[in-house]
Amino acid sequence: MIQHPSFAVEPWSVREHHLHLDVLAQTESVFALSNGHIGLRGNLDEGEPYGQPGTYLNSVYELRALPHAEAAYGYPESGQTVVNVTNGKLIRLLVDDEPFDVRYGTLHEHERVLDMRAGTLTRRAHWSSPTGGEVRVTSTRLVSFTHRAVVAIEYEVEAVDRPRGVVVQSELVANETVAYTGDDPRAAAVLESPLVLEENMAKEELALMIHRTRASGLRVAAAMCHDIDGPEGTRVEVEGSGDVSRVTVATRLQPGQRLRLVKFFSYGWSAKRSRPAMHDQVVAALAAARLVGWEGLRADQRRFLDTFWAGADVEVEGDAEVQQAVRFGLFHLVQASARLEDRPIPGKGLTGSGYDGHAFWDTEIFVLPVLTYTYPRAAIDALAWRRSILPMAEERAVQLGLRGAAFPWRTINGEECSGYWPAGTAAFHINADIADAVRRYVDVTGDMSFERDTGLPLLVATARLWRALGHHDALGRFRIDGVTGPDEYSAVADDNVYTNLMAQQNLRVAAEAAARHIDRARQLGVTVEEAATWRDAATAMFVPYDELLNVHPQSEGFTKHAIWDFDATRPEQYPLLLHFPYFDLYRKQVVKQADLVLAMHLRGDAFTPEQKARNFAYYEALTVRDSSLSACTQAVLAAEVGQLELAYGYLGEAALMDLEDLERNTVDGIHLASLAGTWIALVDGFGGMRTGEGRIRFAPRLPPEITQLTFRLRYHGSLLQVRVTPSSATYRLLDGPPLTLGHHGKEFPVDEKPVTRRIPKAPAPGLRIHQPSGREVVPRHSN
Amino acid sequence: MIQHPSFAVEPWSVREHHLHLDVLAQTESVFALSNGHIGLRGNLDEGEPYGQPGTYLNSVYELRALPHAEAAYGYPESGQTVVNVTNGKLIRLLVDDEPFDVRYGTLHEHERVLDMRAGTLTRRAHWSSPTGGEVRVTSTRLVSFTHRAVVAIEYEVEAVDRPRGVVVQSELVANETVAYTGDDPRAAAVLESPLVLEENMAKEELALMIHRTRASGLRVAAAMCHDIDGPEGTRVEVEGSGDVSRVTVATRLQPGQRLRLVKFFSYGWSAKRSRPAMHDQVVAALAAARLVGWEGLRADQRRFLDTFWAGADVEVEGDAEVQQAVRFGLFHLVQASARLEDRPIPGKGLTGSGYDGHAFWDTEIFVLPVLTYTYPRAAIDALAWRRSILPMAEERAVQLGLRGAAFPWRTINGEECSGYWPAGTAAFHINADIADAVRRYVDVTGDMSFERDTGLPLLVATARLWRALGHHDALGRFRIDGVTGPDEYSAVADDNVYTNLMAQQNLRVAAEAAARHIDRARQLGVTVEEAATWRDAATAMFVPYDELLNVHPQSEGFTKHAIWDFDATRPEQYPLLLHFPYFDLYRKQVVKQADLVLAMHLRGDAFTPEQKARNFAYYEALTVRDSSLSACTQAVLAAEVGQLELAYGYLGEAALMDLEDLERNTVDGIHLASLAGTWIALVDGFGGMRTGEGRIRFAPRLPPEITQLTFRLRYHGSLLQVRVTPSSATYRLLDGPPLTLGHHGKEFPVDEKPVTRRIPKAPAPGLRIHQPSGREVVPRHSN
Repeated sequence: MIQHPSFAVEPWSVREHHLHLDVLAQTESVFALSNGHIGLRGNLDEGEPYGQPGTYLNSVYELRALPHAEAAYGYPESGQTVVNVTNGKLIRLLVDDEPFDVRYGTLHEHERVLDMRAGTLTRRAHWSSPTGGEVRVTSTRLVSFTHRAVVAIEYEVEAVDRPRGVVVQSELVANETVAYTGDDPRAAAVLESPLVLEENMAKEELALMIHRTRASGLRVAAAMCHDIDGPEGTRVEVEGSGDVSRVTVATRLQPGQRLRLVKFFSYGWSAKRSRPAMHDQVVAALAAARLVGWEGLRADQRRFLDTFWAGADVEVEGDAEVQQAVRFGLFHLVQASARLEDRPIPGKGLTGSGYDGHAFWDTEIFVLPVLTYTYPRAAIDALAWRRSILPMAEERAVQLGLRGAAFPWRTINGEECSGYWPAGTAAFHINADIADAVRRYVDVTGDMSFERDTGLPLLVATARLWRALGHHDALGRFRIDGVTGPDEYSAVADDNVYTNLMAQQNLRVAAEAAARHIDRARQLGVTVEEAATWRDAATAMFVPYDELLNVHPQSEGFTKHAIWDFDATRPEQYPLLLHFPYFDLYRKQVVKQADLVLAMHLRGDAFTPEQKARNFAYYEALTVRDSSLSACTQAVLAAEVGQLELAYGYLGEAALMDLEDLERNTVDGIHLASLAGTWIALVDGFGGMRTGEGRIRFAPRLPPEITQLTFRLRYHGSLLQVRVTPSSATYRLLDGPPLTLGHHGKEFPVDEKPVTRRIPKAPAPGLRIHQPSGREVVPRHSN
Repeated sequence: MIQHPSFAVEPWSVREHHLHLDVLAQTESVFALSNGHIGLRGNLDEGEPYGQPGTYLNSVYELRALPHAEAAYGYPESGQTVVNVTNGKLIRLLVDDEPFDVRYGTLHEHERVLDMRAGTLTRRAHWSSPTGGEVRVTSTRLVSFTHRAVVAIEYEVEAVDRPRGVVVQSELVANETVAYTGDDPRAAAVLESPLVLEENMAKEELALMIHRTRASGLRVAAAMCHDIDGPEGTRVEVEGSGDVSRVTVATRLQPGQRLRLVKFFSYGWSAKRSRPAMHDQVVAALAAARLVGWEGLRADQRRFLDTFWAGADVEVEGDAEVQQAVRFGLFHLVQASARLEDRPIPGKGLTGSGYDGHAFWDTEIFVLPVLTYTYPRAAIDALAWRRSILPMAEERAVQLGLRGAAFPWRTINGEECSGYWPAGTAAFHINADIADAVRRYVDVTGDMSFERDTGLPLLVATARLWRALGHHDALGRFRIDGVTGPDEYSAVADDNVYTNLMAQQNLRVAAEAAARHIDRARQLGVTVEEAATWRDAATAMFVPYDELLNVHPQSEGFTKHAIWDFDATRPEQYPLLLHFPYFDLYRKQVVKQADLVLAMHLRGDAFTPEQKARNFAYYEALTVRDSSLSACTQAVLAAEVGQLELAYGYLGEAALMDLEDLERNTVDGIHLASLAGTWIALVDGFGGMRTGEGRIRFAPRLPPEITQLTFRLRYHGSLLQVRVTPSSATYRLLDGPPLTLGHHGKEFPVDEKPVTRRIPKAPAPGLRIHQPSGREVVPRHSN
């Protein structure tokens, strides 16, 4: 947890005034830069000290054996782990032969600023070496949104008090020492030196290295070149051998004089392309970058982000922290997805090695819902990746004795690498989650060519899975037994309400899409009879209900279980999974993360308002939020059932997950889904937005602390701005054709003229809500 | 599977007329000798060829890391694996410098005989070397029942046609190459060379080696000496170095002349005793053995077995195969348990390394029920072992957040080493199984001092577990959620009927025993109030019932699951667990082994006859018998519900499990529980014996093929013989005080005078019974 206020609260930037080495690893995640293809952790230029060095290329992973104490049929035998590739951001500095290292000498000033409009990380240091050599160092780095393969760093060093001999070493280094944070000693071994050198070329001002990953056989190329601007007599040398390439710039600076270099480096990787081809590829990327130049790259970066923010920005008045946090979240979302090009969005983006760099259902259920409205291109890319791994998912379904596709619970390359099936293979809901992301994208954009080419194969394969996975019982109800829902404190249960409702939608939407694209569906082998079985299963879908307690059990029988003894659970025993066996968690009423409550968010149509209120109250008392994927959903439902203060508390939890390191694992990378959750809590929560079946509706209502909330989103080719005040909401079309909107249950059209609607008085909160003792939401007071 | 008839059907022996190298490993298990402390696989004297060399000392194991692809709280981190200790049975032979190896030259005759009254394995070979050296070799080995640490082999070689130079090398060899049959490559590595030499002494005619296991640190000592009887000029040399000790006997034999040696070897092991102490211990054991001499050991062995058979023999007329098999089973039972002395009875006894040498619930539920009536001493020893590991089980309960004791699902040293918790930790029924073995032993023997000293602590600790594991629901029913019953094709289910009924008995019996031994119970911290909560939980125990189908679901909700598609399952897809994921097995109605049916055997009082018949028919159609722990139970219930032909089929399956290698894994050791099952099928099945609450009742009824069944058993200090014919049963007291018996529901006393009672006509079989298609019982025809 970040105990001291690390970051200044500013609307468009995340600024650190002082360097705190105790939270260095966390700030590396927060300050990470990425374009979805390349990711750099916010490591200091000079490489040391570091929390975790990290340079990632989307989908560059190493394989490792997955050990099982007792093996069984269908267990994945190999796992994938994201690899720290060649580090190009290293720029070391010597001042009169003393290495610049913030742990030595005197650090007079140190500031880092992540500028969310410029898309840059700037660092300013004022330092005296142990022998008194005083310099100012300024660096600005960017991972280009517009040049996918390119990173650039502007680095300046200035002598302050007297003439100084200055040497700058700009490097490419592969196989850095990485502190593996997982618990498999063999994974650590695999990752110790994952890259095998194929080429190291240093010639004139170009340095280049090509490696291959040892087991997965992926070829990774990195190259660098520099623009150097120093006093007369500045000498430059280029050398390379082994896993290091180095450009050394030596000069003598008079007080006030500066050495400036701009480092351009580029990456490429491929499982197929040859070494010469990769060589040429990264050299060409460098040439393109150099042509544009540093200022050109900066300008392109800002232009890209201006366009993004114009369609995505959220303004929050009355809570500066949340204002900063929602932009921070959106910024990391666009960073994680801007240049995906058919690659996955991992749970941590490209900001750290947490979760081994795997992608999960988070993408479809938390990240894509935001991107669909704010940066829909990314939703296409992420779902195209799912489409590209469909053959593997189909093979997995065959292996499991099923039909259609069984998407992996966690993966990089498309193959399942979950080592624990009750929370992996059994979590079949991921298939309905993917279908839901397809459905939402098509519903929100109306993009029929996407539906036909990318969406339909995904919808058909997942519908087939559900049809094979479920069965009709003697009373004709369609049941799905033995699966795990979102809540990982239950597993392998019958008729999980979330799963059944999402599968129901999956089956129905697949049948509808197949009817819209009859020819394409026929190519996929869908017959009218098959689609009829989907509709039938959807109609007959069983949703358990506890008539005694008048609530929905999360899964059949759940509400008959003993309730977890929260009073006997000490604060240090959270998260529970680190202190109690799965066995005990599974058989009791205790919820790690929203499950039934998430069903009420995503399938709100399946519940009456009274059921929502009762269910919400029931599950609030059981939900311990040991996952970062909970607070935002609880915020949305709290808002819906009129618990606005509570919703506001949950908003704070979701928003500050990484800026305050609430789960204490931001060291491993940011929580992309929780960052997305800030937007979801604001827009779906206080904005009350719901879409589906071609309609978009709002039911805005603010908590007292927020005085005005303004958000923008794209819907069917239009750009809509919604401004909510405590008493009214104003809907304004910023671009595109007119829309029909809903406001608190009434529909109306919006064209050029903004429409303002009064917000009805909130109903009196009904049921008393409480969280498990010791896990109460900290009430949020705006600042 | 043993395809050809390997073994002659003889009443008191298992004879192999020819050596079949394709089933060598299976015969090594079948011909294994053991006394419960030492176990020798039936390897050929000369060591090669072998299926698997094996010499075991009860509880000598090596530790190895248990790998988990995804670790979690409470997973065992280290496993135990039985170690192949120093091989003392090696006697190599050279005939005119040609090694005796059955794979070369000509094997004119080869016979092996396991004599179940003598307790010996005899081998006779008539062999010509590739160069024509013709010899007869005869060896007889025994693992002494009366001298716990001692093995002896009489070895004779005779020149047949002309004078032959003969060299016999009698050895002790440690760290033999073992073909590891598990699936963990690291376990194989650990077991490659598990013993570290501490001492190798060869002096005059004594050779001795002491080793320590590398990680578990157990000290193992072995020593040998010989009585040698050869022609004049026979030379003897003793040498030892590294992991080998060797006594070489060289002589020249005239035709008809013999070299005879008797090899005595002894073992000892300890986790605590010093090297010198162990040295002295094995030397002393040798001295004692030599004093008794070969003939003395043989005579003692026979006397021991005569006593055993007098109280345990079962005579089956009309089925010679079953006659042989039931004695084979009893023989292996006494071999596995005769000299336990507070050590466990592993699932394979000491006949192979299968299941890593672990002990399971099989012991308490299948093995001890037989030993309790036939060799009660062993039941005391085996339960004393459970008592000795109680502190570890109590620690495990604390780790799991429970109270009382949580006994390990599989172990050697008392620590849990199950690597898969849904079929390990969650199988809590093992605790009630142990309590049931205690209950049965006390009920059958009336041994109150055992109950007080060994039984009560076990009953109290297990009752506490159940009280902590279950909970009352809103309707006051006591439920036990999220546990795994005996059927391993379901897991982590609520209210498993077997578990709940066995726990109910456990709670009740613990309360009763605590009331009988108030002082001792008080020492264990049992208050009147605590015992009251046990009685209350027992009374309130919930037993689910499916009113729609009129059967007991195996666990809550089981009968609502889809039924496994047996028609689509091909014969080669059995056992299912090798071809389908647990995920799929768990969520469907398919039963690996008797579960609800086992509950009807062990807690028959909890079911009406009609329920038994309906339940039996229901579960017959779902049970695939992918476990060897099923057929015998199905035999018992089939007999009880009047399906005598079916019971007879199941009897055959249980009886021939190892003699015909029905499960194809006898290579790894015999199936001790299934062998016990032969007795259970005969006595509880066709004898209809049930005991409990101080009563013993019979309801005998034979299948047409069996013309007479006679069994003996010990009950409350008396020895009872029951002889059943198709029309009547005769109860005869062979020893001890008079008994009150039940016969088909009527009680009567038996004293010196035998009592004969008519067997009532069998009721017409009601329901049609069928097994899953492709898994039908092969009807048995007697031979």
